[in-house]
Amino acid sequence: MTQLFIKNSYLITMNNNRDVYKSGNILIEDNIIKAVGHFDESIVNEDAEIYDAKGKILMPGLVNTHVHLSQQLGRGISDDVDLLTWLRDRIWPYESSFNYEDSLISSTACCIELIRSGVTTFLESGGQYVDAMVEAVDKTGLRACLAKSVMDQGEGLPEAWQKTTEEELATQIDLFNKFNNSSNERIKIWFALRTIFNNSDELIVKTKDLADKYNTGIHMHIAEIADEVDFAKLRNGLPTVEHLNNLGVLGPNLLAVHTVWLTNRELDLFRLNNVKVSHNPAAAMKVVLGFASIPEMLDKGIPVSIGTDGAPSNNRMDMMRDMYLTSLIHKGRTLNPTVVNAEKILEMATINGAKCALLDDVIGSLEVGKKADMIILNPNTIHSLPMHNPIGNIVYSMSSENVESTICDGKWLMKEKEILVLDENELLIKVKEQAEKIREKSNIKLTSNFNII
Amino acid sequence: MTQLFIKNSYLITMNNNRDVYKSGNILIEDNIIKAVGHFDESIVNEDAEIYDAKGKILMPGLVNTHVHLSQQLGRGISDDVDLLTWLRDRIWPYESSFNYEDSLISSTACCIELIRSGVTTFLESGGQYVDAMVEAVDKTGLRACLAKSVMDQGEGLPEAWQKTTEEELATQIDLFNKFNNSSNERIKIWFALRTIFNNSDELIVKTKDLADKYNTGIHMHIAEIADEVDFAKLRNGLPTVEHLNNLGVLGPNLLAVHTVWLTNRELDLFRLNNVKVSHNPAAAMKVVLGFASIPEMLDKGIPVSIGTDGAPSNNRMDMMRDMYLTSLIHKGRTLNPTVVNAEKILEMATINGAKCALLDDVIGSLEVGKKADMIILNPNTIHSLPMHNPIGNIVYSMSSENVESTICDGKWLMKEKEILVLDENELLIKVKEQAEKIREKSNIKLTSNFNII
Repeated sequence: MTQLFIKNSYLITMNNNRDVYKSGNILIEDNIIKAVGHFDESIVNEDAEIYDAKGKILMPGLVNTHVHLSQQLGRGISDDVDLLTWLRDRIWPYESSFNYEDSLISSTACCIELIRSGVTTFLESGGQYVDAMVEAVDKTGLRACLAKSVMDQGEGLPEAWQKTTEEELATQIDLFNKFNNSSNERIKIWFALRTIFNNSDELIVKTKDLADKYNTGIHMHIAEIADEVDFAKLRNGLPTVEHLNNLGVLGPNLLAVHTVWLTNRELDLFRLNNVKVSHNPAAAMKVVLGFASIPEMLDKGIPVSIGTDGAPSNNRMDMMRDMYLTSLIHKGRTLNPTVVNAEKILEMATINGAKCALLDDVIGSLEVGKKADMIILNPNTIHSLPMHNPIGNIVYSMSSENVESTICDGKWLMKEKEILVLDENELLIKVKEQAEKIREKSNIKLTSNFNII
Repeated sequence: MTQLFIKNSYLITMNNNRDVYKSGNILIEDNIIKAVGHFDESIVNEDAEIYDAKGKILMPGLVNTHVHLSQQLGRGISDDVDLLTWLRDRIWPYESSFNYEDSLISSTACCIELIRSGVTTFLESGGQYVDAMVEAVDKTGLRACLAKSVMDQGEGLPEAWQKTTEEELATQIDLFNKFNNSSNERIKIWFALRTIFNNSDELIVKTKDLADKYNTGIHMHIAEIADEVDFAKLRNGLPTVEHLNNLGVLGPNLLAVHTVWLTNRELDLFRLNNVKVSHNPAAAMKVVLGFASIPEMLDKGIPVSIGTDGAPSNNRMDMMRDMYLTSLIHKGRTLNPTVVNAEKILEMATINGAKCALLDDVIGSLEVGKKADMIILNPNTIHSLPMHNPIGNIVYSMSSENVESTICDGKWLMKEKEILVLDENELLIKVKEQAEKIREKSNIKLTSNFNII
């Protein structure tokens, strides 16, 4: 048994009582939290690792509920273009050209950026090489809910992605049996539904049945763009969420991502069925999906979390930036500077994220018995001082630059800005080389409005 | 004569032709650019300082066109509150309690944050201790247009700020005579008008006359909130800008800040009179001022630049973040992902900023004969690689963390992340101590929604 004792931090627990210790301690045994706050230090063993976090903030690791690991090397391939160009001329050619190695390097790079932004758990929206994702997550030490992106129909789909309903279901079951609870239970296998454009009703219903049977989650892009709702109405006579309700798919194990174009009735269906929501503020603005009704959802008690989406639509995997954006966007949209306040943002990024991951009994807050997933923020920078209001400063002033250390499952993944799980410089070189290869084989041409000499 | 030769950079000139050198050099002599791009290196002296910027980006220093130096220590005193609370219960008590030392430390801290975010020139909106601002700018090496905040009327104004029209005018003339073109011409003294709420028509007209006489600029908050336009209509029968037009104040030396609530006719008045605009995206969202019509202004050819506003409304002085936000907000607002693209954002933050500062003949681009104000970005981080599209990556992926070096007037202010102009750790300690003192004397109480133990 190994112990890690972190002392003297400004400790934000995110427990039910939302206790914050101005100076608090935490004791970790192996991968489990044994004591939090003020406790008798006689339980700390002599050979425990002791870390003094005086002047720093300790809080639960952030949960990023919508990530595309395989899009990481496509950062910057589709800036300032319309959505159809974005998807068909850039993302599909790029991602469908992937092989295992591309996916492994892309996934590993994404995991390291997540660690640097304070993420300890993330939910993948579904890619093609789940085995490569598993390898990256295993190596980088994060906690993740991974899935295969399944598509059994859809106009213009790349040939490599054209599969039958039965093939897609079989693959998901195989992956579940092979990888669920691997890497010391850090990896969960979920089922994924890409969008209603790309999934038949049969695939949707059977995926729901399997997810229930295997007691796991379903990750799905829902009501992402207005066209999708129009498509659903044309095919089924009902908007996306009402149709999914008729199919019996709404439930506590459904994570609905984006959820921009919902009627009030559909919001109520979410609440009644305890559907989880991932809000993606950066993608919503940059690729112009639209503005989800987040304050309204929070008022209804829907567990809304925050996701970054993939590198070509954000372009960062930076939960610190997206926490800030979430607050900003909805103040602007509702013309009310008091909505989605800093405390609410921390809830969305921690305990609500854990609920969306179906893991709120084990992560999302610093409480005795939970897994030891946490981060240390160093506010001692010119851009985050003075600190009259620490919670406000985390959301409005700090950035991933202030994330100093990331601990997942009791292990330091980053300690005082140094990545401990792999050689980061070596990875940066691989990222540049591999990205160049992929752009060449996918034949994507970028132009500039400036005169490049 | 000293020479600095920076070689092998990805060099973005922002000249009229918008030339970008994939691998370019620059030669600086004292504080002036002597050669740019590809040139015969025989002009480089043997004793020149040589800096290899291979793999890095060199571009003009950013121009932040709306800063409140004295609000820096008030970061976090007014998060998540409505605008009236923000102003009357937080900002006014805080700022009106200031003495010279408070202002000096606040200004110095702000300058260092600006340097770290790649700013080489900024425009102050007007504070009380201009001499303290001058001292801070002189020491930190930045270029700045400073002003006194003048107010000769207005409901609820703190007593310390109640002055007559003549007093305010006399102070501005004194300051101009004393400090304009000081610090090797890095400091310009401007005239400032706080808002139409706080300025009589007499003060407005006489300020314009003096600014013209002294050949300097006027910095004014204009149409910042809807209430202001209502107030202007009630007082003058016309909205703010139309009234200013009748007073003869619109002109090329007027910098209009925020400019949220303008009619189309008022936009045309700006264009006809070559008025300059400072757009403040973060403040617009966080304090809920509203959304300025920036793409429309740019289409009309109005020189729109970017400003951060002060720490209590942003809460960062981070031009890199506000460049990103500017693009994001207007894509979202117009439902068009192609507007305010990355190249346009760089223009706003450099050459347009220089136009707003009335300094586009000397800064804003890297061209022979201009002052040597520039920054070096290091893209070699996990959050900004791969770099398929450098201009896009600057705006959408990089942050102030990527600003590695800042050069102003030919001098390194920050070199490879190290601040060279003062002892930064000493400053951080002062910031914490002084901010605490000010909060106590201004008697501001902050509460939390969390349970602080």
